[in-house]
Amino acid sequence: MLEELKEVVLKTNLDLVKHGLVIFTWGNVSAIDRESGLVVIKPSGVDYDKMKASDMVVVSLDGKIVDGKLNPSSDTPTHLVLYRAFPEIGGVVHTHSVYATAWAQAGKDIPNIGTTHADYFHGSIPCTDDMTAEEVQGEYEKETGNVIVKRFENINPIENPGVLVKNHGAFSWGKDAVMAVHNAVVMETVAKMAYLSYGINPALTMNPYLIEKHYSRKHGPGAYYGQKKK
Amino acid sequence: MLEELKEVVLKTNLDLVKHGLVIFTWGNVSAIDRESGLVVIKPSGVDYDKMKASDMVVVSLDGKIVDGKLNPSSDTPTHLVLYRAFPEIGGVVHTHSVYATAWAQAGKDIPNIGTTHADYFHGSIPCTDDMTAEEVQGEYEKETGNVIVKRFENINPIENPGVLVKNHGAFSWGKDAVMAVHNAVVMETVAKMAYLSYGINPALTMNPYLIEKHYSRKHGPGAYYGQKKK
Amino acid sequence: MLEELKEVVLKTNLDLVKHGLVIFTWGNVSAIDRESGLVVIKPSGVDYDKMKASDMVVVSLDGKIVDGKLNPSSDTPTHLVLYRAFPEIGGVVHTHSVYATAWAQAGKDIPNIGTTHADYFHGSIPCTDDMTAEEVQGEYEKETGNVIVKRFENINPIENPGVLVKNHGAFSWGKDAVMAVHNAVVMETVAKMAYLSYGINPALTMNPYLIEKHYSRKHGPGAYYGQKKK
Amino acid sequence: MLEELKEVVLKTNLDLVKHGLVIFTWGNVSAIDRESGLVVIKPSGVDYDKMKASDMVVVSLDGKIVDGKLNPSSDTPTHLVLYRAFPEIGGVVHTHSVYATAWAQAGKDIPNIGTTHADYFHGSIPCTDDMTAEEVQGEYEKETGNVIVKRFENINPIENPGVLVKNHGAFSWGKDAVMAVHNAVVMETVAKMAYLSYGINPALTMNPYLIEKHYSRKHGPGAYYGQKKK
Repeated sequence: MLEELKEVVLKTNLDLVKHGLVIFTWGNVSAIDRESGLVVIKPSGVDYDKMKASDMVVVSLDGKIVDGKLNPSSDTPTHLVLYRAFPEIGGVVHTHSVYATAWAQAGKDIPNIGTTHADYFHGSIPCTDDMTAEEVQGEYEKETGNVIVKRFENINPIENPGVLVKNHGAFSWGKDAVMAVHNAVVMETVAKMAYLSYGINPALTMNPYLIEKHYSRKHGPGAYYGQKKK
Repeated sequence: MLEELKEVVLKTNLDLVKHGLVIFTWGNVSAIDRESGLVVIKPSGVDYDKMKASDMVVVSLDGKIVDGKLNPSSDTPTHLVLYRAFPEIGGVVHTHSVYATAWAQAGKDIPNIGTTHADYFHGSIPCTDDMTAEEVQGEYEKETGNVIVKRFENINPIENPGVLVKNHGAFSWGKDAVMAVHNAVVMETVAKMAYLSYGINPALTMNPYLIEKHYSRKHGPGAYYGQKKK
Repeated sequence: MLEELKEVVLKTNLDLVKHGLVIFTWGNVSAIDRESGLVVIKPSGVDYDKMKASDMVVVSLDGKIVDGKLNPSSDTPTHLVLYRAFPEIGGVVHTHSVYATAWAQAGKDIPNIGTTHADYFHGSIPCTDDMTAEEVQGEYEKETGNVIVKRFENINPIENPGVLVKNHGAFSWGKDAVMAVHNAVVMETVAKMAYLSYGINPALTMNPYLIEKHYSRKHGPGAYYGQKKK
Repeated sequence: MLEELKEVVLKTNLDLVKHGLVIFTWGNVSAIDRESGLVVIKPSGVDYDKMKASDMVVVSLDGKIVDGKLNPSSDTPTHLVLYRAFPEIGGVVHTHSVYATAWAQAGKDIPNIGTTHADYFHGSIPCTDDMTAEEVQGEYEKETGNVIVKRFENINPIENPGVLVKNHGAFSWGKDAVMAVHNAVVMETVAKMAYLSYGINPALTMNPYLIEKHYSRKHGPGAYYGQKKK
């Protein structure tokens, strides 16, 4: 079932390794088939070089395994919360990529200080609050999703397709799994650039006009970057 | 038309990826045929691994598409301003390479503090001023070129073949597209070296005699680096 | 003798190079056969690209060469002290990987400030004390093991499978050589992340609940990460 | 003539690229045949991927071209000064490797703060003084050699096989070209480690006993690292 989506989810998981965002089994990609409401996700703790499309696990939006012999990623409940809260998204990625995770460990939002960032994220890439003892000791992975959703109370998840979970790592999303991976690469890159920029000039400033221009030339109604969509 | 130049422009665009300066479609190289006044440039938003020489777009110096089925890079107007303002240059490169972009985001010129830098750039690699609301909201890409040209009012663009656009990224140029890419690699390398050097010693000093010596032994009238030109 | 273990020790030594933890001959992996009490270790100063399984050296726990024509790694006495002091471990790794060694040279423990760390190490990754003149000028490699064991007086080596030797480098271990290498990669990664995190926010804080949760979901009695063990 | 040494010099020049120390034509390796007093060195400004053994240039110790059709490296006079001043050395390397050059641009010696360093360099890796106007404007490359030799007035070049030339880059040497390259890799690695270590702890300390121990276990009369020399 959902064989095509399983192929996509396998490939995008392997892309995380190719882009240098993931070593060992430290990441996961999922994709949702919005028609059936079913989510395809990587199995937990399986070596990337042995993983086959048929190992992908299909779960319902409330977390029941519908297809597959392996345990789904232990982060599955986080993915499901995001799919339920953000109905426009089609793919979710989790990584511990080094620079994004460094900002998450520092507990700081990544400020929008350049057009590389503004091309994909309208505002800062937010960092979540500390999770409480109850959240961590309860349904931890689900609560991780909830703490993300809470952080987005006043943030548009389509215009800001990623988040840092404090002392943990990065989650990103997109209209599909490919764009979710793309945004994970962007997060890692702008995390590195911002780290370096503040090292050079702690008092740096951003030009607010550039943020609006770059975000809208790629994503606004009058977007003119790239080729005409067929 | 200009088939040979299209091959060069394709190859130099791919070289940006090979040198680690560009991921996804985040860069562009163009070259000009000064005889006809026509510019060959990368198409906008096309995957590098699918790009063919025949996808390159030919535009006139005033921006009209003369040959090609795809949209040219959205940064084309910036390239054209540079070709019009700097008549000696034959190729232009734009990247968001990480260390150069970090300096651009920091809003700082990269000082000439070593012979790696002095072998290619006579002075600091300048960073442009903030662009105004009018510039950003108007013909933005053209104004990006104008803000670069303004920054070079008292700087020789042949002796300083590159610039940082504030909060954006790097542009470089050269006698042809190959040298423009070469200078983009130099900018990224000296951006990294300078970042590290100031981390080690914020009070470092440069020996002014080395600047003159290294620049002139490669570029001056008595240049003696390399082999005799045939 | 112990031909299978020699293959494992060869492969895991080569894995150190593959993971970018070792250049030249700057690392070593050993494994112990607890039944016979014999240790298989890399020979000293042999090029990695010429090393064969049959070059591996077998030594007894008191350091006598039992099989092999080459000198064992000069760090063999350190490995042996660790096998004698920590009876649950099956493999030991030594590297000068760059970020872990930077912390060792700085003489600082790597604090547990994120779940990447907490997934593998319960507490800080400790740094040893300075070695005395007597220790260094005496049986130096054996004393290096002793200074590690002393540092673990109040630390559980199974829950904290690695250490920084001050002004020297990293040692890690695990239930076998493969896990010891795995933990060496983790140490290098969290060493880099922590370096960057403190650069972003010197006053960062860790959520203690995350430490317990992440460590126990992988290693505790109710561990649920990965697939059921067969 | 000296065909075998030409092969060695070609290969070691290519090794600089393989080790990531050199891009474009930014480095050079030479070797000396002490019997004939002839030096084999890389030609100036020739692309590494087109360079053949027969392109190597043979020069006498006083700088006369004895064999070869191309210009020798423009840094040849620096190499020759070092061969004349340090009669025990058989190979010389020059690079602009990033971290070593960052220290050179910072104008600081690289302190010996770990055993990675102490395994190859007995003391700090020294940085030269500023060169005077006369030195730079005169026989510059020869004077670069002289400023190195002056810096080693009270330093043993065999126990400290490398130097930083201020605001320029790194030179290293060894008993032959292979060891000179080896020492260039060591310099780059310890330059990176030291940069990071001082970022973690500006007040770090070194254990002097480790310096003596590690240097002597590899290089002293009682050296016991590696295999018995045949």
